[in-house]
Amino acid sequence: MNLFTKQTATLALAAGMGFAAVSSAWSAESLQDVMKRRGLSQQDLLAASKTYVPTGKRDEFVAFSSGGQSGQVIVYGIPSMRILKYIGVFTPEPWQGYGFDEESKEVLKGGRIDGKDITWGDTHHPALSETNGKYDGQFLFINDKANPRLAVIDLRDFETKQIVVNPIFKSEHGGAFVTPNTDYVIEASQYATPFANKKFVPLERFNEEYRGGVTYWKFDRKEGKIDVKKSFTLELPPYSQDLSDAGKLASDGWSFTNSFCTERYVGGIEKGRPPYEAGCSAKDTDYMHVINWKKAAELVAAGKAKKVNGMDVIPMDVSIKEGILFLIPEPKSPHGVDVTPDGKFITVAGKLDTHVSVYSFEKIMAAIKAGKFEGKDPYGIPVISMQDTLHKQVQLGLGPLHTQYDSKKCVAYTSLYVDSQVAKWDYCEGKVLDKISIHYNIGHLMTMEGDTVDPKGHYLVALNKLAIDRFNPVGPLHPQNHQLIDISNDKMQLLYDMPIPLGEPHYVVAIDAKMLKPGIRYKVGTNSRTDKPSAGAVRAGEEHTDKKAGKVEVFGTLIRSHITPETIEATVGDEITIHLTNLERAEDETHGFTVSTYNVHASAEPGKTVTVKFKADKEGVYPYYCTEFCSALHLEMQGYLLVKPKGYKEVKVAAAKADYNKADYDKQVKKIADTQAVIDSVVGFITSHNYKDFPDVVALVEDATDQLGRMKEAKAKHEESAKKQDWQNATLWAEQVWQYQVKAADIGLRAKTYLEEHGAKKVGK
Amino acid sequence: MNLFTKQTATLALAAGMGFAAVSSAWSAESLQDVMKRRGLSQQDLLAASKTYVPTGKRDEFVAFSSGGQSGQVIVYGIPSMRILKYIGVFTPEPWQGYGFDEESKEVLKGGRIDGKDITWGDTHHPALSETNGKYDGQFLFINDKANPRLAVIDLRDFETKQIVVNPIFKSEHGGAFVTPNTDYVIEASQYATPFANKKFVPLERFNEEYRGGVTYWKFDRKEGKIDVKKSFTLELPPYSQDLSDAGKLASDGWSFTNSFCTERYVGGIEKGRPPYEAGCSAKDTDYMHVINWKKAAELVAAGKAKKVNGMDVIPMDVSIKEGILFLIPEPKSPHGVDVTPDGKFITVAGKLDTHVSVYSFEKIMAAIKAGKFEGKDPYGIPVISMQDTLHKQVQLGLGPLHTQYDSKKCVAYTSLYVDSQVAKWDYCEGKVLDKISIHYNIGHLMTMEGDTVDPKGHYLVALNKLAIDRFNPVGPLHPQNHQLIDISNDKMQLLYDMPIPLGEPHYVVAIDAKMLKPGIRYKVGTNSRTDKPSAGAVRAGEEHTDKKAGKVEVFGTLIRSHITPETIEATVGDEITIHLTNLERAEDETHGFTVSTYNVHASAEPGKTVTVKFKADKEGVYPYYCTEFCSALHLEMQGYLLVKPKGYKEVKVAAAKADYNKADYDKQVKKIADTQAVIDSVVGFITSHNYKDFPDVVALVEDATDQLGRMKEAKAKHEESAKKQDWQNATLWAEQVWQYQVKAADIGLRAKTYLEEHGAKKVGK
Repeated sequence: MNLFTKQTATLALAAGMGFAAVSSAWSAESLQDVMKRRGLSQQDLLAASKTYVPTGKRDEFVAFSSGGQSGQVIVYGIPSMRILKYIGVFTPEPWQGYGFDEESKEVLKGGRIDGKDITWGDTHHPALSETNGKYDGQFLFINDKANPRLAVIDLRDFETKQIVVNPIFKSEHGGAFVTPNTDYVIEASQYATPFANKKFVPLERFNEEYRGGVTYWKFDRKEGKIDVKKSFTLELPPYSQDLSDAGKLASDGWSFTNSFCTERYVGGIEKGRPPYEAGCSAKDTDYMHVINWKKAAELVAAGKAKKVNGMDVIPMDVSIKEGILFLIPEPKSPHGVDVTPDGKFITVAGKLDTHVSVYSFEKIMAAIKAGKFEGKDPYGIPVISMQDTLHKQVQLGLGPLHTQYDSKKCVAYTSLYVDSQVAKWDYCEGKVLDKISIHYNIGHLMTMEGDTVDPKGHYLVALNKLAIDRFNPVGPLHPQNHQLIDISNDKMQLLYDMPIPLGEPHYVVAIDAKMLKPGIRYKVGTNSRTDKPSAGAVRAGEEHTDKKAGKVEVFGTLIRSHITPETIEATVGDEITIHLTNLERAEDETHGFTVSTYNVHASAEPGKTVTVKFKADKEGVYPYYCTEFCSALHLEMQGYLLVKPKGYKEVKVAAAKADYNKADYDKQVKKIADTQAVIDSVVGFITSHNYKDFPDVVALVEDATDQLGRMKEAKAKHEESAKKQDWQNATLWAEQVWQYQVKAADIGLRAKTYLEEHGAKKVGK
Repeated sequence: MNLFTKQTATLALAAGMGFAAVSSAWSAESLQDVMKRRGLSQQDLLAASKTYVPTGKRDEFVAFSSGGQSGQVIVYGIPSMRILKYIGVFTPEPWQGYGFDEESKEVLKGGRIDGKDITWGDTHHPALSETNGKYDGQFLFINDKANPRLAVIDLRDFETKQIVVNPIFKSEHGGAFVTPNTDYVIEASQYATPFANKKFVPLERFNEEYRGGVTYWKFDRKEGKIDVKKSFTLELPPYSQDLSDAGKLASDGWSFTNSFCTERYVGGIEKGRPPYEAGCSAKDTDYMHVINWKKAAELVAAGKAKKVNGMDVIPMDVSIKEGILFLIPEPKSPHGVDVTPDGKFITVAGKLDTHVSVYSFEKIMAAIKAGKFEGKDPYGIPVISMQDTLHKQVQLGLGPLHTQYDSKKCVAYTSLYVDSQVAKWDYCEGKVLDKISIHYNIGHLMTMEGDTVDPKGHYLVALNKLAIDRFNPVGPLHPQNHQLIDISNDKMQLLYDMPIPLGEPHYVVAIDAKMLKPGIRYKVGTNSRTDKPSAGAVRAGEEHTDKKAGKVEVFGTLIRSHITPETIEATVGDEITIHLTNLERAEDETHGFTVSTYNVHASAEPGKTVTVKFKADKEGVYPYYCTEFCSALHLEMQGYLLVKPKGYKEVKVAAAKADYNKADYDKQVKKIADTQAVIDSVVGFITSHNYKDFPDVVALVEDATDQLGRMKEAKAKHEESAKKQDWQNATLWAEQVWQYQVKAADIGLRAKTYLEEHGAKKVGK
């Protein structure tokens, strides 16, 4: 009875590439009809064929995008451009229980500033952890520009594990960027502020007392955490430091940070002064900062840093004296500073210049070695001349912004904001190879693993800042438009327009999907935010509720489809703590939990223990329930929190009378037998096929066996009750046996369908 | 220089339907190559061709999906299944400034319960407003199960305008459902609680004192708001009321609400009692509630209701006496109760029965008229017999759940949760027509406008609760899987798997895209949450800052690319209020706003006035900036909030020395002339073509003209400064002129590309 197989069989593959009009009963429309009806060109069809991912197949690359002002990270597949997940990072997100359960509140607490919760973030640059300059698929880092913070996401479970606050900066646009072995995560300040940041200093003292900086956060890979104590910052002039990139291979040990507004202009349009946009873009060049971070780390270890707000800071004079900090002029208001895969060149795009400038690391080193400088900036930092260090300058168009690299040698792609184009060019020879129009006004762009030592080519994503007319209108606030471009051929081909429904992503990184191997369940009783056993975890049968003066602490469990306990009793004013362990082992069997009107929610994936905590500050009856559609009877996965008034006296109430009799019980027993026959036939189908060759089916069979295993206890109870002629309990426990049967049948049918769809074969006895 | 056109030209359309291998330079790969490389079958290609929407084209239908536990609403296009927007509803969402600006905080304040903020929602059933039983594209309603609330979203701007709290219920799964002219929005309670809901009542008094109910919220279409005072509730027995549907055409004036756990079972697994899932599913039938809501409204108007917690409630005895409430047995643990397009039948799917039951409204009325009842429920409500009212019962499979209708007469689709299938069947004749497997465990399903009097057919979306192996793994918490199915032919065809990246949607509705005509800008100075002029709005040139004891109130503006004012001065402890009006008129020219570490964010779409408010409780210097990438110089759209210590004495500081001289100014003037030449050439191109035939281009030209218009003031300033030999100001104001030129050029280039891509024609003089 497998309809899918039947349908496929009717679709005879026409000879060669001619697509015969399919006239079988199941489809009245041929491909030709569809193209005509939908107005698709052959180019459209080709693009569709390059991006469509059929059911059950996987995307080739997984992208991690900044969620912009949503404060989250967006995960999507390439080439299908389907969004797979929004990961809660800086903003509380109830579906994931993020900021609603106690475990994740601890993570967000790490992001408090001046003792207060910050409930959002302006995320900008995600960075994947690297080993030897290649993505290793282990961790993701993302910054918050508005509130200078950095978050660590573990790619074993796609959860945020840590948020750290920069104690010196007040904003930071330029992060995160990692060194080739993820020793450090680089983060630069944006708008200069007084360095000892708790102090007011008038803007008139901008040049003297306002400062920028670059922080190198030490990453402890084993702990999966930033080690704040081993992190340090370089003090920098009050330029607006912007993006960075770490050197690699040839340039390993160095990092590069560009800047704008080196005019150090202070606006004041309200006082008749020209605005920042005029004053900050008046000169033709800004400065690229060239920093020897390896030596900087040694200086810190040698005690040459000063503590500022608890962080080790290398003062500018020390950096200058020790020869770890240099400047090179770069074209006007630059954005990207992007090291080539071999580490030999650094590409800078100045938004208000039509060129990209390719700097030679070798030439930079030669100038430094020779002590050949064109002068010093106002703070005494040596300035290397542009001429001495340039490899090539290539005219690309209006508004060049950010560069990424191809798997093909010497090939680079640069976004042109004003021209609304992507330019493909050769950075070795310095020539333009191709251009393609995007829609509209591209900011960053991204090629597959295009900022590593080993770019993968294939695709490019244009992160367009305006969508305007591209999508069905959804009001004055438009989605962003990420356009997918095929770069595997000489000419670029536009493949797909992807609306971003929440947040304005600034940058995105993509990794070969094969590199990601996240888990599907936790070890039972895990606090997922610490990756350690939860103190609130219990095993099945060990559930209990502890009551102490003013406190009720529940150690409960979740399983298809009941919550243990089903009643929680408290007195007004009690502090309620509820720990819940999801006992499921099956993939995707998540349970949610909430208590009516008490503003708590938790998502418990298989094995996870979650904790919610609140004050029962109002008398009454509050239903709680599982918020995930976990089984056919998920609505019945419920309970009641009873909040009694202080001094409430229990009232003696007559026991409820029985609703069921022997006939009801006998009916149940017959139903169980009938259902078992269905289950046996499904089991027969599965075991008569080579199901052990399909790991997904083996997992389903284990889950079904698990469900049937749970029957035993309920079966013993209904039989025991029947012996005592307690037809009430006998009937209901028998119903519970049937509920387990229904769940097992559900899983068994899924397994059967899977085997049919995947061409499983009959096996001999 | 139009690359797009060149590419298209090389793609010669092969004769007939044979797809010749394309061997031109721009694409080395033919369709055949792509299919082979990506392992696509012809069926896959057909599905791709049915779902792919090329750049600039639109989707046919727009779906509004519950955002599940995210507390938001998801908007996506069909057939592309691309998510267009997450609308902030019950959960604060910073990208939209929702819950971060003062205007939206007022909306969320309406959703407070017991005086406290609820910062999430468990959204379930979205409903589109209807006129004569058809979607009119004006409003969307969505409920919150966990905290019994209802939200109103205006589809002119896709913003949430109102949240109301049900003062009687403690949970409500069954909402929202509208009457055919949106007179009322129907919402049913789920888990019974003591009716006077502030009181504790022991569970032993469940039958006597716990109650359910159905609320009819009066909708005032002109105001776009629920009129709480004109809303009312029917008291119902303590069954778990579930979904509802309003009658239409033949059955207009009536509504239908089903229920589960009419066993009135109270669990207590922790005390050794069988769990709710066993006790709530022990009997073979539950009850459908049949309610005459038109007569109910008349009873309320006639003063027959009682006030409970401020709401008009019709007591059960009144409903019984007045003949507006009846019950009919329905199969075990039903979920959907779905009225057919003609209003003549009501389909109920009992999850633990293999049948769907089709009830005849005519037969129901006949039984009521004849006073033919099989008995009464324990509360005295007349029970009509199932046999007397059934039109058909059809065996579909395991776990039937929810039904939607086709444009074809008599054709219905029902989800089968346990079988993981969709059944297509004929409700007139009572026979199964087709089945298709989904992946996995479908909850609700949805056809285009399938719950109106005029379903549109074409597509069906299966809302699957488990995705398991369908997508690239993203950790233990999986996305949901909405599968798109083509229902235009006899056999259903699976087209697309769509991951839902945030929240578990319960239900979704879809409307013909042509019915939606949202605006793209507000009248300048609008408070978008009230749709009234904002008291904080100012026009360009009128910006000002008011200071009163302890208060600083800023009336500012936003425009590409500066914030007026660029400096805000305050003293520690001041309450800061910042109103910002976005002066842009161009589509998609949104500006964002935040102040470093003060946890505020606003999104100001064109014309909108937003307000942020906070206490400047810490001394220091806090950058503020535009958080949207609004132009090439968006990073320079910045300012400083200066928070001085109490009693701070201004220090006399020497004026900054000039940075620019006459040579700098002359260079600027030349740059302006050069850029003007570029602009003139673009303008020449546009005006030499029939651009007036393209409304999108006309809008761009208006925007560009607007930008050039702003130049005048800056031009006057630089010329005046030059006359005074003030080279500093002359140079910077000249730079500002150039910034306007860059913005105009940006827009002009977009217009030029648009004309080229859309085949604009040269026009004669």
